[in-house]
Amino acid sequence: MTASAAGARQFLQLPGSFELRRGGVLERPVLAYETWGQLSPERDNAIVLFTGLSPSAHAASSPGDLSPGWWEEMLGPQRPIDTDRFFVVCVNSLGSCFGSTGPSSDNPSSNALYAIDFPVLSLEDIANASLPVLDALGIDRVFAAIGCSMGGMTALAFAALHPARCGRLISVSSAARAAPFAIALRSLQREMVRRDPDWQDGRYPAGAGPITGMRMARKLGMITYRSAQEWVQRFGRERVAAEHGANDPFCIDFEVESYLEAHALKFTGAFDANCYLFLSRAMDLFDIADYGGSVASGVGRTALDEALVIGVGSDILFPLWQQRELADALGATGCDVSFEALDSIQGHDSFLVDMDRFRPVIGSWLANR
Amino acid sequence: MTASAAGARQFLQLPGSFELRRGGVLERPVLAYETWGQLSPERDNAIVLFTGLSPSAHAASSPGDLSPGWWEEMLGPQRPIDTDRFFVVCVNSLGSCFGSTGPSSDNPSSNALYAIDFPVLSLEDIANASLPVLDALGIDRVFAAIGCSMGGMTALAFAALHPARCGRLISVSSAARAAPFAIALRSLQREMVRRDPDWQDGRYPAGAGPITGMRMARKLGMITYRSAQEWVQRFGRERVAAEHGANDPFCIDFEVESYLEAHALKFTGAFDANCYLFLSRAMDLFDIADYGGSVASGVGRTALDEALVIGVGSDILFPLWQQRELADALGATGCDVSFEALDSIQGHDSFLVDMDRFRPVIGSWLANR
Repeated sequence: MTASAAGARQFLQLPGSFELRRGGVLERPVLAYETWGQLSPERDNAIVLFTGLSPSAHAASSPGDLSPGWWEEMLGPQRPIDTDRFFVVCVNSLGSCFGSTGPSSDNPSSNALYAIDFPVLSLEDIANASLPVLDALGIDRVFAAIGCSMGGMTALAFAALHPARCGRLISVSSAARAAPFAIALRSLQREMVRRDPDWQDGRYPAGAGPITGMRMARKLGMITYRSAQEWVQRFGRERVAAEHGANDPFCIDFEVESYLEAHALKFTGAFDANCYLFLSRAMDLFDIADYGGSVASGVGRTALDEALVIGVGSDILFPLWQQRELADALGATGCDVSFEALDSIQGHDSFLVDMDRFRPVIGSWLANR
Repeated sequence: MTASAAGARQFLQLPGSFELRRGGVLERPVLAYETWGQLSPERDNAIVLFTGLSPSAHAASSPGDLSPGWWEEMLGPQRPIDTDRFFVVCVNSLGSCFGSTGPSSDNPSSNALYAIDFPVLSLEDIANASLPVLDALGIDRVFAAIGCSMGGMTALAFAALHPARCGRLISVSSAARAAPFAIALRSLQREMVRRDPDWQDGRYPAGAGPITGMRMARKLGMITYRSAQEWVQRFGRERVAAEHGANDPFCIDFEVESYLEAHALKFTGAFDANCYLFLSRAMDLFDIADYGGSVASGVGRTALDEALVIGVGSDILFPLWQQRELADALGATGCDVSFEALDSIQGHDSFLVDMDRFRPVIGSWLANR
């Protein structure tokens, strides 16, 4: 294995073939990751953090990279995931485009982009790809796996596939399987990307790609990441300034339209379209019931001491009943489960923005262990 | 005015200019409509029915057109809206494409399609366009205006703009104003249509148009018209047969994807894209608070004796709090309001499919008057 680093970001290249769950093989894939804190001499204070679809491994700032991370307020010295106590590892998902091997990487066998020829990706592959990183860091068993959204599914897969290596689970706004409403939304998002002529059947050149499709997919994402209640309070029926194209009957007119446009523009340059497609599809495919035929049997493969399952009532993408299903199934394994249903109105994204509600729940749960 | 008919569908051409609320003018527009039952000698048994975005005036079968209408089980002899008692008129919305003048009609001044040059449409215009039809039928005042979804907003506009002509209101899964969540969804649907290269900036030839954009917009429509709960029961994680393109990693795989595809294909040939854009935008623009500055003041312009407001808990597009807001505002006018929150799990579309719940509510309310 070859290790290297760039700022806080470290890279591990696997020496041989990495087999994917659905039959594909990646030759010498690279995993990008960041760490915070110090591994204890007993090697019993490690936390592995799995991300949602779009974030990088940069969950928080550190001496090597002072820029704020995607969970900056949650992770650091004296923060809820206290890096004075824990050694935290966040791996950029296999299939993503922030340093780990994915569809936007070169296939070392052909020296061309994987693009649409990337093998079918599953969340189990993302979980398995974190193992060599943990091995390289000397971590046999993590104190806890933590995952948000897609990352919660990945963390559950990690705990089910490698029960001896995972002591605890914190699942944040996630689920034991993809539900049809979320599948429908993601399927449509993928169609928006694929129908953009600039997708070019997945063969767009590096740096180019389906900007329009990605922008629309991101807008649908934002619509499902927040909540109707929040937007009533935040935007109501406020209009933008009239200068936005008075001669176009379908110009951006309402504040909520302008907000979506701004978010979509920010995203499109930042995330590779094919990576988006493969990760989105991996979420649809995930079902812990693949292991033994039911959610109970799949969750039953874990050997967790304790778990914390957090959900939000206003989340339409990973609704509360899915967190309850997961918490109930974990409880049935004999694991000590804490279930928290939070009142945040910011929907699925609450774990990124409603920090006043999330910080104390995660902080006190970890502090009491 | 010129009257004509084709089967059950009748046409009324206005003789002069029809002024729209936002400043445009239509020359000699045509209104298509259907009627059921007989106007009483006292002319006091008329009901005007306003439709959602996509239906035609064919709400139910009749001797002139035996095909089932979009509200077949609700409307007819001995049905909840009993045409042995009531004389029912349903007008195809101005701006639609089922006989009434809209963007897919020829502009008589130029003999070219209106297309994107159609004036900005509002729901008030649709309400006002029904007046000449009622006049031609000898109806001074309707027993009730009934509207579903967009049609409920139109019915409210009718009651507020013409209080002397409207005795009662039945609002079904509708609202007093468009909320930002629904605006965001419709704005994105319009963007899908407009970004399709075949939209051709709205100048596509008659019979052609943005098939892909319309198909995706319809899929998003279907996702928001139903509910996550229904789909868990109906589809779960069922897969379609493997023959659907095993070599495409993003082929239709889950039943829910196949369902959306089938619905989308059915819609795209049937509805003109520019009509869709103008009607969709008219919904966003609707706000009864435009009249006097608040929902209370706008609703206060009605002079209704009685109203029935029906909503469904699983509706994410016109959520229950919007029905409550409307019912409360109507109650504050001194109107006798019945408010029904139904337990249907089929979301916004429940009024079209969960007839066992809707029939008795509407039937008994009318029967008791």
